[in-house]
Amino acid sequence: MTHKKIRLKDIADMANVSVSSVSLVLSNPETKRISPEKRKEILYLAKKHNYVPNSAARTLVSNKSNSVGLIIPDLENPFFSTLAKKLEKELRSINYVLLIVNSDTGDTSDLELVTTLHQRNVDAILLATSLSTFGNEDTLTEYIKSIDIPVIILDRSLPGYSGSQILFDNKLGGYLATQHCLDQGHTLIGIITARNTSISGLYRYLGYVEAMKDYGIAIKENLISDGSFDFNSGYEYAEKLIDNGATAIICANDLIAFGVLKKAQELNILIPDNLAIIGYDNLAINDMLGIGLTSVSQDIAQLAKNAVQVLKETLKDPTYQERILLSPLLVVRNSVNKVG
Amino acid sequence: MTHKKIRLKDIADMANVSVSSVSLVLSNPETKRISPEKRKEILYLAKKHNYVPNSAARTLVSNKSNSVGLIIPDLENPFFSTLAKKLEKELRSINYVLLIVNSDTGDTSDLELVTTLHQRNVDAILLATSLSTFGNEDTLTEYIKSIDIPVIILDRSLPGYSGSQILFDNKLGGYLATQHCLDQGHTLIGIITARNTSISGLYRYLGYVEAMKDYGIAIKENLISDGSFDFNSGYEYAEKLIDNGATAIICANDLIAFGVLKKAQELNILIPDNLAIIGYDNLAINDMLGIGLTSVSQDIAQLAKNAVQVLKETLKDPTYQERILLSPLLVVRNSVNKVG
Repeated sequence: MTHKKIRLKDIADMANVSVSSVSLVLSNPETKRISPEKRKEILYLAKKHNYVPNSAARTLVSNKSNSVGLIIPDLENPFFSTLAKKLEKELRSINYVLLIVNSDTGDTSDLELVTTLHQRNVDAILLATSLSTFGNEDTLTEYIKSIDIPVIILDRSLPGYSGSQILFDNKLGGYLATQHCLDQGHTLIGIITARNTSISGLYRYLGYVEAMKDYGIAIKENLISDGSFDFNSGYEYAEKLIDNGATAIICANDLIAFGVLKKAQELNILIPDNLAIIGYDNLAINDMLGIGLTSVSQDIAQLAKNAVQVLKETLKDPTYQERILLSPLLVVRNSVNKVG
Repeated sequence: MTHKKIRLKDIADMANVSVSSVSLVLSNPETKRISPEKRKEILYLAKKHNYVPNSAARTLVSNKSNSVGLIIPDLENPFFSTLAKKLEKELRSINYVLLIVNSDTGDTSDLELVTTLHQRNVDAILLATSLSTFGNEDTLTEYIKSIDIPVIILDRSLPGYSGSQILFDNKLGGYLATQHCLDQGHTLIGIITARNTSISGLYRYLGYVEAMKDYGIAIKENLISDGSFDFNSGYEYAEKLIDNGATAIICANDLIAFGVLKKAQELNILIPDNLAIIGYDNLAINDMLGIGLTSVSQDIAQLAKNAVQVLKETLKDPTYQERILLSPLLVVRNSVNKVG
């Protein structure tokens, strides 16, 4: 049996009171701001007409919706789908709903999505910035500073933002990956970066630069290719780097490394004998499929845990701010040197 | 500079009108229901105090939020993350925001999540049911019939629900997978099902039963293992089926097949020489990593496209109902018989 949803306004009209009064009574039936008779009448009408408590109306009065928005750039990147799932689990345990939106599918900017979630009365926003923000950090920073709900930056740093940010040390990760190849005797180390499309990608690249410098190895421009965090960047750029003499390729993430692996397979290049490959993210699929990719690992569960801790503090005290920099670890498998 | 968000109520107080009046003017500045003077005053106050249009308030009047909720069981299953992304892209092109919630991480039921999204004023809900609904279909069906926004069922059928459902023919898929193994001469065909945890899993299993029957091959109970749609179900149950003499294993999805592949790798069993494996979903990672898994393919883009078409019709006419059954296809690679 389908029935028309009764709205606050309908009850308000029937009880001859304002929408806010109805909302107030339904969210707090004991409120002293409305007379006992009116309260009784409103509650009776709501019950009679099967009123579904509507968070839109409730939040007009209570200003709390028990929901948190999450903006992530790419749901299909397992790093982010795992992050979203872990955040959701943490939040559900404290009775919050996580509303997830994906940013990189269209031309919609992080700024528009922050607005969208803000309008939907989430109590806070967790934000891993997208391509649209890269190079436009100031505009986004200004905007999120001006709104009245906390925005916590996750995974991709937002320079100039004084609010909470929970990040991984991407420069350290890039350094660890490069150092590992250097320690195995490689000097012609290629890199497929995401330095022009992501702040995390930029820092990973800077870690590469620093390690090469520390080991006194000159960087060759023709061993650097600039892509983005996807399979195709690896698949498309691998051959050029190999042709230019790279004996090792550092990849800005695992998806890029998968692309390089695929291209190497097609070219009958043996890994690691003819080419060393190193990834970043240490995706679960690595172990599932026994791919053997050496990769820089980021503890996503730790990121989610810290994010929710900071969120809880922030909801108690809106002035609360914290910066956390988590360290990545190198997980050595067989794609640089054979182990075990 | 952080400033307190101005609420509808604040503007209402300043203009000495009701919250609904303010909301009405802000959503429709030309409204004839409020005097031109009051309209001007409200718009002036909203502008002066930097009012952010708040969908919660707006929907109290317009009853439209331009958002659609999506409930999916497992964001980490690439089938669902791809589906979510494709739906989001389709919806954004018609100016709708997709709010995604994930169901299977906790004890929260589909029913609770439908309520949550309903309370947040989404205009419609797209629902792929979770484990919590399996065996409790009637309760969910009753509930979604009683609410006033359309609920469109995706991917996992909800028996007894007369509203729109867009599904894949899972029985046909299970049949195709089994038939392929039978055509390669296998008779001891094992299966790792999800028949006790998912309606799609049940139908895939029924397709297996029908194909075996059609080919006159008896089903051996000790070649059937019941798991769920995850890697561990494959990894844990593969060995038992192999020990019981299976020469082929049909997997209810690719994640299960990945688990079987991993176990076979550990046991030094050659694929397909010593064991044929067939998956379901034809995940993109199959081709990315050159895994060579033969798998039943479902056109996720088609599902998303149809879902949004049905949604658009439904938003125009709430009585609109459509049932679409999409056919899967078998994609043959090297895990049953060597090709190419």
